[in-house]
Amino acid sequence: MITKRQAFTAFVLGTMLITASGCGQQSVSAANSAKPCDKQLFTTLNRLLANPFARVVLPQNMPSSRIAKYFPVTWTHAYANAQHNAAFAVSSSAPAWMKHGVSWSFSEARAWPLSNPNAYDTSVYGARSALPTITQFYGNATGVTVVKGVVYAESDDDFAYAINAKTGHLIWRSSPVGNHLMGDPVVSGNIVYISAGSVGFNFSAVQKYAAHQPAVRGEHVSFNGVYALNAQTGKLLWRYGTVGEAMATPVVKDGDIYFATGSGHIHCINASTGQSIWDTFVGGIDNMSSLSVVNGKVYVSLSVPGWLYCLDAKTGQVIWKVTQPGVVNTGMGDVSPAVADHIVVMDAVADPKVIAGQKTVNTVLFAVNAQNGHVLWTAKMGRGPLPPAFKGGVPMIHDHVIYVGSPVNSVYQAYNLTNGRLLWTWHVPHAGPAGAGRGAPTYYQGTLYVSTGPTIYALNPRTGQVLGHETLGGRFGIVNPVIVGGTIYLGNSWDWVLATPVSRVNPFYHG
Amino acid sequence: MITKRQAFTAFVLGTMLITASGCGQQSVSAANSAKPCDKQLFTTLNRLLANPFARVVLPQNMPSSRIAKYFPVTWTHAYANAQHNAAFAVSSSAPAWMKHGVSWSFSEARAWPLSNPNAYDTSVYGARSALPTITQFYGNATGVTVVKGVVYAESDDDFAYAINAKTGHLIWRSSPVGNHLMGDPVVSGNIVYISAGSVGFNFSAVQKYAAHQPAVRGEHVSFNGVYALNAQTGKLLWRYGTVGEAMATPVVKDGDIYFATGSGHIHCINASTGQSIWDTFVGGIDNMSSLSVVNGKVYVSLSVPGWLYCLDAKTGQVIWKVTQPGVVNTGMGDVSPAVADHIVVMDAVADPKVIAGQKTVNTVLFAVNAQNGHVLWTAKMGRGPLPPAFKGGVPMIHDHVIYVGSPVNSVYQAYNLTNGRLLWTWHVPHAGPAGAGRGAPTYYQGTLYVSTGPTIYALNPRTGQVLGHETLGGRFGIVNPVIVGGTIYLGNSWDWVLATPVSRVNPFYHG
Repeated sequence: MITKRQAFTAFVLGTMLITASGCGQQSVSAANSAKPCDKQLFTTLNRLLANPFARVVLPQNMPSSRIAKYFPVTWTHAYANAQHNAAFAVSSSAPAWMKHGVSWSFSEARAWPLSNPNAYDTSVYGARSALPTITQFYGNATGVTVVKGVVYAESDDDFAYAINAKTGHLIWRSSPVGNHLMGDPVVSGNIVYISAGSVGFNFSAVQKYAAHQPAVRGEHVSFNGVYALNAQTGKLLWRYGTVGEAMATPVVKDGDIYFATGSGHIHCINASTGQSIWDTFVGGIDNMSSLSVVNGKVYVSLSVPGWLYCLDAKTGQVIWKVTQPGVVNTGMGDVSPAVADHIVVMDAVADPKVIAGQKTVNTVLFAVNAQNGHVLWTAKMGRGPLPPAFKGGVPMIHDHVIYVGSPVNSVYQAYNLTNGRLLWTWHVPHAGPAGAGRGAPTYYQGTLYVSTGPTIYALNPRTGQVLGHETLGGRFGIVNPVIVGGTIYLGNSWDWVLATPVSRVNPFYHG
Repeated sequence: MITKRQAFTAFVLGTMLITASGCGQQSVSAANSAKPCDKQLFTTLNRLLANPFARVVLPQNMPSSRIAKYFPVTWTHAYANAQHNAAFAVSSSAPAWMKHGVSWSFSEARAWPLSNPNAYDTSVYGARSALPTITQFYGNATGVTVVKGVVYAESDDDFAYAINAKTGHLIWRSSPVGNHLMGDPVVSGNIVYISAGSVGFNFSAVQKYAAHQPAVRGEHVSFNGVYALNAQTGKLLWRYGTVGEAMATPVVKDGDIYFATGSGHIHCINASTGQSIWDTFVGGIDNMSSLSVVNGKVYVSLSVPGWLYCLDAKTGQVIWKVTQPGVVNTGMGDVSPAVADHIVVMDAVADPKVIAGQKTVNTVLFAVNAQNGHVLWTAKMGRGPLPPAFKGGVPMIHDHVIYVGSPVNSVYQAYNLTNGRLLWTWHVPHAGPAGAGRGAPTYYQGTLYVSTGPTIYALNPRTGQVLGHETLGGRFGIVNPVIVGGTIYLGNSWDWVLATPVSRVNPFYHG
């Protein structure tokens, strides 16, 4: 296992010296003259030297079924479910550590020092641009997944990880993709599904866009698609390749996988075999917008042009589509719609105006009848500068209330789901130059949790008042706090997976 | 050291299982109870597990100075020099293996099986698009560098490599970048210089291009710039970061580094310190076009718009610029101009016509007076479909003859340097769907060597007649055969570095 101390010493990309010469100058070829035990080590060492992207498996770190049973057994959607509320209470018979919470930090392949407040390349890009750039190209863009005692995470370092939820020790690491991984792994049965793609357009796509033709995101700039991995070992079972990027998290539901791409396709494939069931071309680009699949319907949002679609989950037929006047840029393709109580909630940057030489937008939040696509209400979340990169806040719905942020004006807000009435606004402190408010909040046992910048906050969900906070360092990108029992699990842009007790964030919490 | 056999077993990305549990289930934490020698191994193993991008150094594989002295001592330009002729005879006192040539294959981090004729993701992209995609995003886009007994290579797998030229064993591997490396490492003194960038545009750049504004390539989609590494250890000495990509190979000359970027900047920086000396903004985009620095002048070519520039090497002032009517797409920014005998030679795709529904172009080859930029002559190399990705052939000049390919019609041709008279045309056999003819040929001891597709050819330089060939597998992208004594060194898109005796390609060669 990799100890925390070793992990901490291993963080800076490219500045760590490994003299892999084993015992002095004998080199790792000394295996030939070593004892059997040594030979096995030498062999492992040589394989890791030859193939740094090799899958690594440490089965002894897999939690026992005795522990696993207290955890969620499946993970179907980005941000856990169609409501985007990643909160899981544990039963009273769960072990004490699950109730009280654990604390660990796991350094992924490129882990940037948590104590460094500046993103990689801040000196080149400036702070405003460097922050989203490290989120998109360096560490974990979104949150993590916790299933059966295992934390699954995806990173722009090209690896997917499985980590023991109690100890923070690596179970496996797999890089079957040769590409950035930007979503949450979804899990069903013994399979983890990851989707891959990157945000770039090649020059041919640039020219097509300029000529008012559809421009495919990710084509010829990455190896795109959905990958099925064995949940125990990270071994690649199959891959469904696509031409456009598949950055956003897929959905696994009732034996099928649903996902959308940078070429405007929405796919349904068999979750066991990877065979196509249907493939509907709607046009436009899915960026980081994941789908919700509820009651036999698929809700998905794409940009360029910006539309929220409802498709029949069985046939892929488009049932309705809806948008809002003035939505711009990638907003509609960035945000994942949330669904609860037969209402679909979506937001997108809209209504661009240049004010004092600066591009500004106002985020429009809207609720739609899930059955027929009629808009129930709209609300303006507030005007501010057009944010860099991901341009919205992922909405979460709990008990007829929407909790949602906006990086345009760096707020979190609560709205009545039925009538769109604003309940409160909380201004994120120290929001930073790139704006705060992208990740979905989590509602857990009467408290709202938000991870933004380097900090996790606990808020009173009725007032937005801050109850407590913990600063872990780095930056949480489009990250939701995943709460299981007494622990909050997160991934961050600095390329770390972190666990911290709920009680450290919320002093009023007593697991 | 990594043996060839081990390397061969380690090739398929993501399908190799490493059970890093050392001796059975004791796991690598067993180090605590092991002997001191074992502890060191365990520590190394744990570090490699924690940080796959860690620098690896095997100093015992560094060649002795006794061997090093028979090799080139510096490497200033892409394709070796301003003429792009990477041919180095060895003295009669050189060891026999240098004269007769060596054969080895070094598998880089993602090495794709050489025997597989299809590129990664052929089933998704189709053969025509998959070939350049694997060149741009998977393996080695260009050739290698051979200095003092060491082969230096860069790969899209994010690593730079130093390999023993005799044995093919790894000396070091370094990944200080978190980005694709697409050029030739250049070497001066004890420093290796690599430049980094990727071909993607972000959505903001796409919108700017559509609005007829300058679009920066690589901005916010990669970590760009020039990196200085210790030639013995791969240790990062300093980095000069840039906003636009720096895909193309820099030039190191007389203590200065010259390079151009995807934001239209041409830089001169101090080769020892990385401090800026001058920075000239000319606009447009440098893609894969490397500079030539000759007689105090910098020659560099950019696209969008396409111009060949001459700058004063001391001040960065533009002395002249020239183009050809009808040059299109990235052609001018792809090809590196060659310079010899006070003449600059350049080619670019031009004169687009849709014929039978297909986009076609004709490659224009032209020669320019290096002093004043006057065009001396132009020639049309032939019409064909617009090639995917890199859109020209890198010209090489030897003894007043230009040898140059064109992927438009998959030919290599020879032209008289002074008057542009066509001397011969050779049609590349089995050129494949992406076209052949991108890499610079190499003239060595009366024979012309060309690496294209999976094959190295020996041609009669007076007639273009094939004298022999060797097929090594994989695909050579924009790769020139680097010849030192009796060995040809190459990198390929399948992520391998290869060495083969000249005599295997050319049956008439007797080292």
